Amino acid sequence: MESITKNAISIEKVQSSKIALVDFDNLAFGSVFSDHMLVCDYRNGAWENPKIVPYGPISLAPAAKIFHYGQSIFEGMKAYKDDTDSIFLFRPKDNHKRFNISASRMSMPELPEEYFMEGLKTLLELDKAWIPQSEGSAMYIRPFMFASGEGFHASPADAYKFMICLAPSGPYFAGKVKVLIEEKYSRSANGGVGYAKTGGNYAGQFHPTQLAKSKGYHQVIWTDDHKHENIEEAGAMNIFVRIGDTLITGPTSDRILDGITRKSVLEVAESEGIKTEVRTITVTEVVAAAKDGSLKEMFGAGTAAVISPIAGFGYRDTDYELQEVENSYAALFKKRITDIQYNRAKDPFGWRVEV
Amino acid sequence: MESITKNAISIEKVQSSKIALVDFDNLAFGSVFSDHMLVCDYRNGAWENPKIVPYGPISLAPAAKIFHYGQSIFEGMKAYKDDTDSIFLFRPKDNHKRFNISASRMSMPELPEEYFMEGLKTLLELDKAWIPQSEGSAMYIRPFMFASGEGFHASPADAYKFMICLAPSGPYFAGKVKVLIEEKYSRSANGGVGYAKTGGNYAGQFHPTQLAKSKGYHQVIWTDDHKHENIEEAGAMNIFVRIGDTLITGPTSDRILDGITRKSVLEVAESEGIKTEVRTITVTEVVAAAKDGSLKEMFGAGTAAVISPIAGFGYRDTDYELQEVENSYAALFKKRITDIQYNRAKDPFGWRVEV
Repeated sequence: MESITKNAISIEKVQSSKIALVDFDNLAFGSVFSDHMLVCDYRNGAWENPKIVPYGPISLAPAAKIFHYGQSIFEGMKAYKDDTDSIFLFRPKDNHKRFNISASRMSMPELPEEYFMEGLKTLLELDKAWIPQSEGSAMYIRPFMFASGEGFHASPADAYKFMICLAPSGPYFAGKVKVLIEEKYSRSANGGVGYAKTGGNYAGQFHPTQLAKSKGYHQVIWTDDHKHENIEEAGAMNIFVRIGDTLITGPTSDRILDGITRKSVLEVAESEGIKTEVRTITVTEVVAAAKDGSLKEMFGAGTAAVISPIAGFGYRDTDYELQEVENSYAALFKKRITDIQYNRAKDPFGWRVEV
Repeated sequence: MESITKNAISIEKVQSSKIALVDFDNLAFGSVFSDHMLVCDYRNGAWENPKIVPYGPISLAPAAKIFHYGQSIFEGMKAYKDDTDSIFLFRPKDNHKRFNISASRMSMPELPEEYFMEGLKTLLELDKAWIPQSEGSAMYIRPFMFASGEGFHASPADAYKFMICLAPSGPYFAGKVKVLIEEKYSRSANGGVGYAKTGGNYAGQFHPTQLAKSKGYHQVIWTDDHKHENIEEAGAMNIFVRIGDTLITGPTSDRILDGITRKSVLEVAESEGIKTEVRTITVTEVVAAAKDGSLKEMFGAGTAAVISPIAGFGYRDTDYELQEVENSYAALFKKRITDIQYNRAKDPFGWRVEV
């Protein structure tokens, strides 16, 4: 079946909510989960009807291919509540679209838009009391799919599970980060899976990131795997560099994720009359700009952190600090985007979707 | 705890064995599982005591990081039974060593050798009736570890599960394979995770392999991600090329798995007086050798298939066939290695380990 109505989603509610146990003023990121979750199985070449059930353990065969061959994809989204308790999503259809792009690269079945959107809205309505309202907090939404089909043959599974979990969350990062430009490890290959939101892209970053942390940095700036000459991503985020008054970000490719915050930043910049360049950023030019003072800002952009300002970077045993700037682009983009997300401002772009 | 005795492994046996339901004369690869499995949890910075329990579903939180961030590693091994019902493993400590190399790259805890070896032997003894004895069949052993710790923060998990499952299996491939030299997609990046046996390396291969299959090939020959000039791996196996009477394989690197069958082939070749070269293999030289007739053999080497002879390859819309050769290296290596594995011949290398 390719379409679904809200009525086709079965709902089993919790007997009693856990919400009273949660301290909404001190939420970490993604570590508390709401009362319900959505589960939808793909078997015999078709998606079955989605079910909303109490959040809780799932049971899988040890031979399920998720444990062996890494067929897993996900999206990161947020839901926001305004002063009148209305609920909003931010560009949710773009997440659905990217979810299917990831699915295709990982040989997993595409999910019809109705399953994604109706499932998400129904789940959010049910658990709307869990959406936090304090500054910087939001309901983090995690749609994900993995191979539940079994077997030790290294080939695509014959069954998959799509799920959505909700995690009321505080801010992802606290404060500015110090980053290290990576020259040994790499995030992705030409012709690889770097543009897909698949689990392996993240696990592969942990070790280099831990090494960077042991040297006093918070994160790694990824460069190309061939000569480490070009700046590609900032940890699990897209990267932006401001040299003079020009905002620069790398082009998306099969190595670089087509970030929704990234493209929102570019659109806000255009509407603000900020000069933007989407082109390869070289390490050489960034180091030179840091030395001559024209490097005004660097920041990561992603759903979890929205905008993550970079305080400085390390490269070949030298640390480069970025001075505070007036009229910070990072601050401007964060304000413009979050104002739209939280329904505090008009949305000339049509990004906000009321649930 | 860093060491363990067999007594520390708790055993819960099945009430009744499923073995009578299995057709041992028609085993597929890795799709039937023995009565028991081993489970060992890592929590609070330490490995707990391993448990052997009936093979069956495992329960995990939906926020377990295996579903989101791809922290998973595995090994492929086999157990063999000879005519006297003695059981043998092949270079098992090399698998353990590589398991820990993979663990380190994926920011997962290393597993002490005793846990691996004693757990494996205890499990195999319990399910030894499941080890098939027909030609080409063996007990496929799947040790694996994944992130069971929870949270949507993209960082290493705080808990892991190590498991061993056993799958009595027939041959991995039936017959010779036709392969396609890949020029668009890639398996691994310089500085990436290609040398680790981690799930994502396999999931990333499925889509290109499916495309190759749709063109009539069985598998992809991976080339470097930069210019696709060098031959690196054959699907999920290491690759060997015989030009004239010289056996050539690529050097291991951070892109290429340090295969146990690969190094066994090199050692057998040396003992047989076959000239070997471990060096970069270019697509150009293989195509030239195919054209001038000096390309005698190509084959993949890996635990599952042992030796997988290649019948021909496609490159830029041209197919190159390999003629049958007398005194095939592939056949020789397969015989030498499997004779040692099944205890049909002396083992001058010290590879065979009796359980």
